[in-house]
Amino acid sequence: MKAVAVRRGEEQPTVIEKPKPDPEDGEALVRTLRVGVDGTDHEVMSGAHGGFPDGEDHLVLGHEAVGVVEDPNGTGFSEGDVVVPTVRRAPDGTNEYFERGEPDMAPDGQYFERGIVGAHGYMSDFFTSPEEFLIEIPRDLAELGFLVEPISITEKANEHAYASRSAFQWNPESALVLGNGSLGLLTLAMFEHTEEFERTYCLGRRDRPDPTIDIIEKLGATYVDSRETPVDEVPAAHEGMDYVYEATGYPPHAFQTIEALAPNGVGALLGVPDSWEFEIDGGRLHEEFVLHNKALIGSVNSHVKHFEAAVETIQQLPEWLFEDLITGIYDVDNLDPAFDEGDDVIKTAVEFDSL
Amino acid sequence: MKAVAVRRGEEQPTVIEKPKPDPEDGEALVRTLRVGVDGTDHEVMSGAHGGFPDGEDHLVLGHEAVGVVEDPNGTGFSEGDVVVPTVRRAPDGTNEYFERGEPDMAPDGQYFERGIVGAHGYMSDFFTSPEEFLIEIPRDLAELGFLVEPISITEKANEHAYASRSAFQWNPESALVLGNGSLGLLTLAMFEHTEEFERTYCLGRRDRPDPTIDIIEKLGATYVDSRETPVDEVPAAHEGMDYVYEATGYPPHAFQTIEALAPNGVGALLGVPDSWEFEIDGGRLHEEFVLHNKALIGSVNSHVKHFEAAVETIQQLPEWLFEDLITGIYDVDNLDPAFDEGDDVIKTAVEFDSL
Repeated sequence: MKAVAVRRGEEQPTVIEKPKPDPEDGEALVRTLRVGVDGTDHEVMSGAHGGFPDGEDHLVLGHEAVGVVEDPNGTGFSEGDVVVPTVRRAPDGTNEYFERGEPDMAPDGQYFERGIVGAHGYMSDFFTSPEEFLIEIPRDLAELGFLVEPISITEKANEHAYASRSAFQWNPESALVLGNGSLGLLTLAMFEHTEEFERTYCLGRRDRPDPTIDIIEKLGATYVDSRETPVDEVPAAHEGMDYVYEATGYPPHAFQTIEALAPNGVGALLGVPDSWEFEIDGGRLHEEFVLHNKALIGSVNSHVKHFEAAVETIQQLPEWLFEDLITGIYDVDNLDPAFDEGDDVIKTAVEFDSL
Repeated sequence: MKAVAVRRGEEQPTVIEKPKPDPEDGEALVRTLRVGVDGTDHEVMSGAHGGFPDGEDHLVLGHEAVGVVEDPNGTGFSEGDVVVPTVRRAPDGTNEYFERGEPDMAPDGQYFERGIVGAHGYMSDFFTSPEEFLIEIPRDLAELGFLVEPISITEKANEHAYASRSAFQWNPESALVLGNGSLGLLTLAMFEHTEEFERTYCLGRRDRPDPTIDIIEKLGATYVDSRETPVDEVPAAHEGMDYVYEATGYPPHAFQTIEALAPNGVGALLGVPDSWEFEIDGGRLHEEFVLHNKALIGSVNSHVKHFEAAVETIQQLPEWLFEDLITGIYDVDNLDPAFDEGDDVIKTAVEFDSL
């Protein structure tokens, strides 16, 4: 079968041939439909994040997949079920985090991430997965199913952020997404359509005309140009934010978020940057944290319940959003544009097959 | 009546004469027993924190009080009830935060703090308070009642910190208190006696012999000398901490806490420092936050339920702790030692009367 992989020593995706996998006991064989591309794939290819499976000279890419069950192999699935796989797997079969259904909370060394670190991803004609890591989705979502994983990332971050505000009566009205990439825009759409914010904002650094600014405004949100309004000046220019969702991976944003928050607000940090030293007014930020009861939470990955929530969410988002957001679906034999990072590209996927 | 106040332009407490207050409707008149002294009082006197009541040339100090009801004045209390007052009051009678019983979540301008900002404190022979801000405590706690307020501060911080970890199965075992002042030591004692930590640590910068190190070790905790083991090196020297409680007000600690935490850990920030610029590796801290699902929460003040929890807690702490922790109770006519900050002083109170 065909697979899209990055080889050791290379930083570009290549189509390779691999044997079709055999499902083990408890695993189903899935025929891949589409696999989304995101910033993590680019970090994996550049070597900034992730790692190859032990003893392998390549890593099959892709962690945002949707497929159709080809061989249930004794699992509870039926042939033809449309499924989305979760990303993390236990290196030694299982461990306490996987046993309690929270692999997203496992620390370093206690997980592989398919397509990212230690295990091959889903960008191939077929993949196998244990039954418990496959989420069935409605057949009419098959074409959008590769968005379930990124949406699940926000479902988890929101759950943790809201939990941090559950010890008092929190009535959030304003939310700011830092970053107008595909995850930022999907999150902004959730803030508008499935969360209860009254005023939403999205920060980027683009000039008009720009397709992401168009989506931001079509969603009813306010575009904040970070070149005019730095994150820590958002309260003066607009208002203090009850919730800030950081999806830029730009470390100063993590700390400026403390000042962007309204009293009692929470910031969710999602980016995974490299080491970078810079100066902060740590005294003022510390005081601001305390005197206004603020919170910051970091969030990575997601688990089955977040995928299930994402399946509900995706059905509540407007159709036009997907039409505008998905800027290209590319065949495995026409791979380059799927990995293009130009300003007119928002979200792409590699298509292996259709229903 | 006598009162202990700081006058405008001065930085020392002075005993002044004031008229005995008349309770208004809904208020009880309380005869003061003891009022604790803490770091906030020193910040208030130096002008670093807080502020005088409008139009007044002095501020009566004291926010950690215990007293006995002298005149119930139609409230539900009886003469002789032993009570502890909360600290925050609404500037304009009430507002949404006070109405929902969460004055601790009110932002700037929507609260006074008695003895700290905008309203006189409790260091006087008598004080009045609305009924809803007085917590009755058992008579046999009268002598320790001034510790209910500081303990309530930790009850709130713990509640918020634990809430931030409520979206997954958190099994904390290790906890580190930053700071060996009276709040740090009371918190450490709570970690040992009312919380469920298996291993506790307390950070200071003192040489032995030292009375705070003695208390730390008598509690069964490990003393961490910050001159040998900086906060961010605690995981290497000891272990990553599931919970870090910052009670030093030293801003680098707020950010080093991110590295002191174990995966999925939470840091509670309590200190109120001044502006101070310094360099951090913001990229590494940001990544650490995200990849290990960490959280930081700021916490200030506390509300009635936290005072009630503190009354339960104080009854579960060992008697020897209070004997060792309370290094002096001083008469209002012998005020200086109550405000002494020497290394042999841990916790003091000013005594106005006894039961």
